[in-house]
Amino acid sequence: MKPIASAAVIIGNEILTAKVEELNGAYLIRRLREKGIPLRWMCIVPDEVDAIVEAVSTARSKADCVFTSGGIGPTHDDITVRGVALALGRPVVRDPELERRVIHHYGGKATPEALRLAEVPEGTKLIWRDGIWYPVIHCSGVFLLPGVPQLFRLQLDSVLESMEGAPVHLRSLYLGVGETEVAHVLDQIALAMPHVSIGSYPQFDSSIGYRVKVTVEYSRPEPVNDVIDQLMQKLPAGAVLRVE
Amino acid sequence: MKPIASAAVIIGNEILTAKVEELNGAYLIRRLREKGIPLRWMCIVPDEVDAIVEAVSTARSKADCVFTSGGIGPTHDDITVRGVALALGRPVVRDPELERRVIHHYGGKATPEALRLAEVPEGTKLIWRDGIWYPVIHCSGVFLLPGVPQLFRLQLDSVLESMEGAPVHLRSLYLGVGETEVAHVLDQIALAMPHVSIGSYPQFDSSIGYRVKVTVEYSRPEPVNDVIDQLMQKLPAGAVLRVE
Repeated sequence: MKPIASAAVIIGNEILTAKVEELNGAYLIRRLREKGIPLRWMCIVPDEVDAIVEAVSTARSKADCVFTSGGIGPTHDDITVRGVALALGRPVVRDPELERRVIHHYGGKATPEALRLAEVPEGTKLIWRDGIWYPVIHCSGVFLLPGVPQLFRLQLDSVLESMEGAPVHLRSLYLGVGETEVAHVLDQIALAMPHVSIGSYPQFDSSIGYRVKVTVEYSRPEPVNDVIDQLMQKLPAGAVLRVE
Repeated sequence: MKPIASAAVIIGNEILTAKVEELNGAYLIRRLREKGIPLRWMCIVPDEVDAIVEAVSTARSKADCVFTSGGIGPTHDDITVRGVALALGRPVVRDPELERRVIHHYGGKATPEALRLAEVPEGTKLIWRDGIWYPVIHCSGVFLLPGVPQLFRLQLDSVLESMEGAPVHLRSLYLGVGETEVAHVLDQIALAMPHVSIGSYPQFDSSIGYRVKVTVEYSRPEPVNDVIDQLMQKLPAGAVLRVE
């Protein structure tokens, strides 16, 4: 799979109520960037079916590849499979292979609650990885990952291995003047080259040796270099401290 | 203001592309929890007007108090005011008091780009704080906060000072058995007392002295104690390692 864009839905009351620090979203952002898969949107929602359905639907309207984190398990608050299935308009079914694995994992005597772990949206493909007995559930571009950070990372890495990203070319300028002094130049260039992503990030800590960082980013290097050249020409003399 | 629920919209390509680590969302989650203001939903969106309009509209459908982070400033990528105004169905206007402050801040000669900082959704109230020359823009329950973390924190604290939260009563059980062994008991109690929030959080690090943490939370202590008592009675003998 070579995703055009991705989105993510982080599920869990524990995150929104500060019981657990959110780590999976930050890890996902880093790994997607390394891999060159653009992330368009991310959302944190409570353990409520309606909220999950809405968030997964929104995510799918923005991206062809959606990651969910959390709500996979045997207890009452593990409702991600149901929410994703509803968002996809598919019934929840028991997967025969997964059922065998669950029963095996529980030593041949799985309780009804344990067997919930074998329920998936219809049409799911299971992604297995050595060293974890439970697979990633993949259905229609939605990848259901566990919320426990160690497991999330392992499972995400399995999924990303099978994906192809696109290169990102990024260059940065560090300025010794404030944003208002360069805004009109940035405006002009951003308007003329809307496909190139230009960011402007002020910082107010005087111990750091610059006042604004300007980033220029695109999938090919030429437009990036072109924008950098234009910035160097048009920005006030002496404004640019360094280019990376 | 005594918010019933809050939601947040974090705005910035720099977050989604891993150029800047997201800190404001995590800080907001902690501070809202300390203050006793429930957070229902949080979203990270790119610097695009449509994405901001959609996210702010969704946030307002879930909460009476919405915080935005980022996209406040004089450059082309600072479009939060426009996005919020569109989400609220209000025009963007220049605030006379803010205009005076902007001109004063820039030593009497503000450029057109600097004057963008005086534009707000119509009907805005400005929240000033000593030590920062720029206010929080507040319009119809939406609080527009800057993305730079030091400023975000100062401004958020100004806003929260004027708000009243509700108490949260939380107790926790630590279990020595896995989730599948307790899922049916949790199910039963969660179903019978749907107003009380019951969470179940497994962990798989054997060096930590428990396997599942169960949290029980409500705005009054009696239902929390009631659920804890029921859990102690119904969970398998010896399953509970400790209660907090």
